[in-house]
Amino acid sequence: MSEDSQRFRLTVGYDGRSFEGWQSQPGGNTIQDCLLETIQRICPGVSTLQGAGRTDSGVSAEGQVAHFDVPADWRMDGEAWVKALNAHLPPTVRIFACEAVASDFHARFSALGKVYRYRIFVGPVLPPLEYGLAWHRRELDVEGYLGALQWFVGTHYFRAFSANRGDGHDETRDTGRTLYSIVEVPSGPDRVVVDIHGNGFLYKMIRFLVGTAFYVSAGKLSEEQVVTWLAEEAPGEKAPYCAPPDGLSLQEVRYE
Amino acid sequence: MSEDSQRFRLTVGYDGRSFEGWQSQPGGNTIQDCLLETIQRICPGVSTLQGAGRTDSGVSAEGQVAHFDVPADWRMDGEAWVKALNAHLPPTVRIFACEAVASDFHARFSALGKVYRYRIFVGPVLPPLEYGLAWHRRELDVEGYLGALQWFVGTHYFRAFSANRGDGHDETRDTGRTLYSIVEVPSGPDRVVVDIHGNGFLYKMIRFLVGTAFYVSAGKLSEEQVVTWLAEEAPGEKAPYCAPPDGLSLQEVRYE
Repeated sequence: MSEDSQRFRLTVGYDGRSFEGWQSQPGGNTIQDCLLETIQRICPGVSTLQGAGRTDSGVSAEGQVAHFDVPADWRMDGEAWVKALNAHLPPTVRIFACEAVASDFHARFSALGKVYRYRIFVGPVLPPLEYGLAWHRRELDVEGYLGALQWFVGTHYFRAFSANRGDGHDETRDTGRTLYSIVEVPSGPDRVVVDIHGNGFLYKMIRFLVGTAFYVSAGKLSEEQVVTWLAEEAPGEKAPYCAPPDGLSLQEVRYE
Repeated sequence: MSEDSQRFRLTVGYDGRSFEGWQSQPGGNTIQDCLLETIQRICPGVSTLQGAGRTDSGVSAEGQVAHFDVPADWRMDGEAWVKALNAHLPPTVRIFACEAVASDFHARFSALGKVYRYRIFVGPVLPPLEYGLAWHRRELDVEGYLGALQWFVGTHYFRAFSANRGDGHDETRDTGRTLYSIVEVPSGPDRVVVDIHGNGFLYKMIRFLVGTAFYVSAGKLSEEQVVTWLAEEAPGEKAPYCAPPDGLSLQEVRYE
């Protein structure tokens, strides 16, 4: 960023069912592309938009954070940006807040932690308004599922609980992460909802954690196996099950 | 219905954003058409589907009821119908229950009452996942709104709070209805949700009641005016405001 610009921080929500994920891709219908194009319609001098985290296709957000730099001579404050962006964005993307921030704020690298929410609907028929917004299970051992999730809290290696991005990045390094808490969110009958708070997450990690806890609850995987994977920096295998993106939402990104 | 058939009662939910209302129309994308076509794919001998109430374009349901008649030699029980229909319907329409009923059961004429829900979101930015599912108001005098709704409880003439269907039906007759209760449903911050239970509703009546209570809360309409309209079998004017369909959902149809 040059000194001739002002950085803004956005808090963004979106309906993940309408997009192919956060991350910009050629010809892709992504939230990052949609949002940057809208910003540039308002102020052509903006060149990039940095998100706190990539969310996969089908994943929603209530509190994604992003930053962008505006030429200093462009006279719009945060409140004006909220109004202008919401007037131009589709209703499936909403700006909840926009604040001017210091030039050393970085949506991704300044983040101290994130909270993701995962929703499961348990019952024979998924209500139509929850389609794409919850993982539909006909049955679930709720106590077993919630109990197994607690094994992940703390500092562990999570490589067995992640997928390769396939972008050439060496996924075998830096797979230690700290999960501060996994707490159930009261959500009415037939819903099992948890908030997962950690300092960072590998690719598809939450979906692997949820899938693993489900496998444990169904008697398909042992505590011993899970604990062994968590202790190994370079385990020889991957957890067998990745839960669908439907139930996942980025709730909050935390900064100092 | 002939004696050679078995009548079934369906409990149906749907996402009203995906359809042009319940009622069948030529070339129209309606829930009744979608559902009858799916029933006929499974059993070509079914000829009609009767709903308890027409819901407008954009209106959702969690508890619509409908009935249809199946040739007696067609061996499928209610549970089999639930599974077969949910396997073929789009995920925006779901069958929650299907039961064999006596041949004199009629989804519309046997109904003793219905419960509709109306949701308002009050705040500067409507969350993207609630788009089309709540009426978005930046501000609302909640006490004034809920208080005015109570004036409608009881037996009154509701002609001033209805629209003409434009189908030649004489809308000036039979406009007396009884509302048994209007109760607030706890729904978290920024949400104002009410359940309206009555023995029947005129065309767009709930949306006129909600719009009228909002007008009262905003100081645009007096209690005296509203009470006068409720007492007149043939008032010379209509209530001035019809709330949008977004917040409306048919929750339940009650029978003996």
